[in-house]
Amino acid sequence: MNILVTGAAGFLGRRLIEALLLRGSLTDRTGQSRPIEQIVAFDMVELTGINDPRVKVVCGDIANAHVLERLIDANTDSIFHLAAVVSSQAEADFELGMRINFSATQHMLERVRQLGTCPKWVMTSSVAVFGGQLPEQVPDNQVWAPQSSYGTQKAMNDLLLADYSRRAFVDGRSLRMPTIVVRPGKPNLAASSFASGIIREPLNGQTSVCPVPLDTRLWLMSPAQAIRNLIHGHELGSEQLTEGRVINMPGLSITVERMIDALRQTAGAQVAERIRLEPNQAIERIVGSWPGAFCAAYSRDLGFTADERFTDVIEQFIHEYQPG
Amino acid sequence: MNILVTGAAGFLGRRLIEALLLRGSLTDRTGQSRPIEQIVAFDMVELTGINDPRVKVVCGDIANAHVLERLIDANTDSIFHLAAVVSSQAEADFELGMRINFSATQHMLERVRQLGTCPKWVMTSSVAVFGGQLPEQVPDNQVWAPQSSYGTQKAMNDLLLADYSRRAFVDGRSLRMPTIVVRPGKPNLAASSFASGIIREPLNGQTSVCPVPLDTRLWLMSPAQAIRNLIHGHELGSEQLTEGRVINMPGLSITVERMIDALRQTAGAQVAERIRLEPNQAIERIVGSWPGAFCAAYSRDLGFTADERFTDVIEQFIHEYQPG
Ligand SMILES: NC(=O)c1ccc[n+]([C@@H]2O[C@H](COP(=O)([O-])OP(=O)(O)OC[C@H]3O[C@@H](n4cnc5c(N)ncnc54)[C@H](O)[C@@H]3O)[C@@H](O)[C@H]2O)c1
Ligand SMILES: NC(=O)c1ccc[n+]([C@@H]2O[C@H](COP(=O)([O-])OP(=O)(O)OC[C@H]3O[C@@H](n4cnc5c(N)ncnc54)[C@H](O)[C@@H]3O)[C@@H](O)[C@H]2O)c1
Repeated sequence: MNILVTGAAGFLGRRLIEALLLRGSLTDRTGQSRPIEQIVAFDMVELTGINDPRVKVVCGDIANAHVLERLIDANTDSIFHLAAVVSSQAEADFELGMRINFSATQHMLERVRQLGTCPKWVMTSSVAVFGGQLPEQVPDNQVWAPQSSYGTQKAMNDLLLADYSRRAFVDGRSLRMPTIVVRPGKPNLAASSFASGIIREPLNGQTSVCPVPLDTRLWLMSPAQAIRNLIHGHELGSEQLTEGRVINMPGLSITVERMIDALRQTAGAQVAERIRLEPNQAIERIVGSWPGAFCAAYSRDLGFTADERFTDVIEQFIHEYQPG
Repeated sequence: MNILVTGAAGFLGRRLIEALLLRGSLTDRTGQSRPIEQIVAFDMVELTGINDPRVKVVCGDIANAHVLERLIDANTDSIFHLAAVVSSQAEADFELGMRINFSATQHMLERVRQLGTCPKWVMTSSVAVFGGQLPEQVPDNQVWAPQSSYGTQKAMNDLLLADYSRRAFVDGRSLRMPTIVVRPGKPNLAASSFASGIIREPLNGQTSVCPVPLDTRLWLMSPAQAIRNLIHGHELGSEQLTEGRVINMPGLSITVERMIDALRQTAGAQVAERIRLEPNQAIERIVGSWPGAFCAAYSRDLGFTADERFTDVIEQFIHEYQPG
């Protein structure tokens, strides 16, 4: 199998590549398991620290049509398309968001259509496609009503991927991801950045700001679970996708208050006290428009899975980033 | 008011222009009623037969960026964007559909954004954005699941228009139109073409083919009602659009069988007998994926209206095209 991963140097991209290398094989579009021969790890930033002869690191701008031509060819069996700019960035810079989050996807799909090879394609959509009046638990047939440019761009990708798949230009699967926590590293421009920050920073001995009310309900998934689901999404046969190519992932529904409780339980009261409440209306507006719970019946039927306890999610992070 | 109408030579475009000329004024974005000074009637085909000094006929391809620059300028107060290729055409020629039905809209919106004038914008979406498992009456919060490229392109336009409106680049309203009947003239490539054909051809003394089962339920609107709603959609103040810019229109829900009954009642059994049942799977597949009834609660709240009796719709057609 020849695999392309875009956004390879990102949070999910790097972990996906590590998981794929460990796994060693994937199911091709004919349903056959085949060894992974090459993973093209594409990103604007160079992916470093993975030393495996199967990985070919390529740097470039995904919004550049010439880059795409060299990146995707008739030998490309599968594409994991993860490159994107985060929600707050797409909101702050409309042109950038449209170019990276939507047009690049459109051009990649066009490249694939022109090749005529119908590769497998897994990408990550977002719950930011939802908004407006929402029931407490969002059903799979809930209308899309993005309240951000990021959500709009993801929804447009979903529509395109579904139509390209219907026409057999590509064998697409768009996984509508919950917010992934705990994300390591620094806070980023995503409106949801605090959801990791309020766990990560206190564990690192730093104070952290919570910009939303304590009763804000979030829809979460751990990094390990996300990678498992990305690979599961790839492995499904297209004949199983009876309700379409855009799949609301299962997740863990939890309030910010309970997240902090779990942190207290796992790491102690002193750690949990490092969280400061500091309302931020801009972030509240975006995050508050995202639903806090989904039925996700279709995805559960398809065998996608969710984290069960938030304390496990915290322990996953501690285990991985604070060994000892 | 300086108005641009795209698709001006089409079925709805021509009628809209006639109605606007008769009306003489429109409400601008500040809420003030102003006389219509100019209507730019843009289409690939030349609009003929309307002789009014306020109408400026312009021919060109809407997918051409240079054309757009001359078409839309800082003086453009309102845009009625109706140009499109029909569903079967967009299905048969993927590139054509994407170019005219989606990319042209995107480029027009970009032109408007760059001008920074935030004109009013009314466009026509379609029930073809829906598909898959549908309740008997489709609620306003029903997920979009287009089963055709035409529906996909319309849904992408809706998403874009909503985001451009949210960012105040444009003051948009997308009206999700039922199938408009009775359409005069020849059958066209729209999958829904038969819905007019089974009324129009028999009235003209010709036989007509019905390609779908008699119990197929359609969601219809008469041309006069469609024009009324397009203008109503323009006249609404943006502060009224509390549930968003994409509005499922009210309509008349009726089975093909009842349509034929209405024809029999209005024009006699002999006329109704000119309809031949001839199943066509391709058309059945597309039309069958469209919902036959909508709640359309939001649009009714906003004051959009529907036809009440199909016999009236037939009489509207007879009155207009067969006077005497
Ligand atoms: N992390 C989450 O909570 C979450 C939730 C829902 C969806 N997603 C989606 O999952 C995907 C991956 O998320 P992530 O958390 O790993 O994001 P990330 O920001 O860590 O990684 C994205 C990567 O894309 C790269 N990139 C950006 N612009 C590029 C360009 N023009 N050309 C090439 N590469 C470019 C960045 O350099 C970065 O390495 C994204 O599409 C994101 O929208 C993430
Ligand atoms: N009639 C219906 O039942 C119905 C239902 C739902 C939505 N709509 C939508 O309403 C709009 C108008 O519908 P209509 O029935 O009047 O369609 P129509 O086909 O009669 O008119 C469309 C017009 O667009 C023009 N056009 C096509 N490509 C063009 C291009 N590249 N450049 C410039 N002009 C171009 C055509 O010449 C035509 O005159 C369309 O957007 C259609 O999708 C119609």
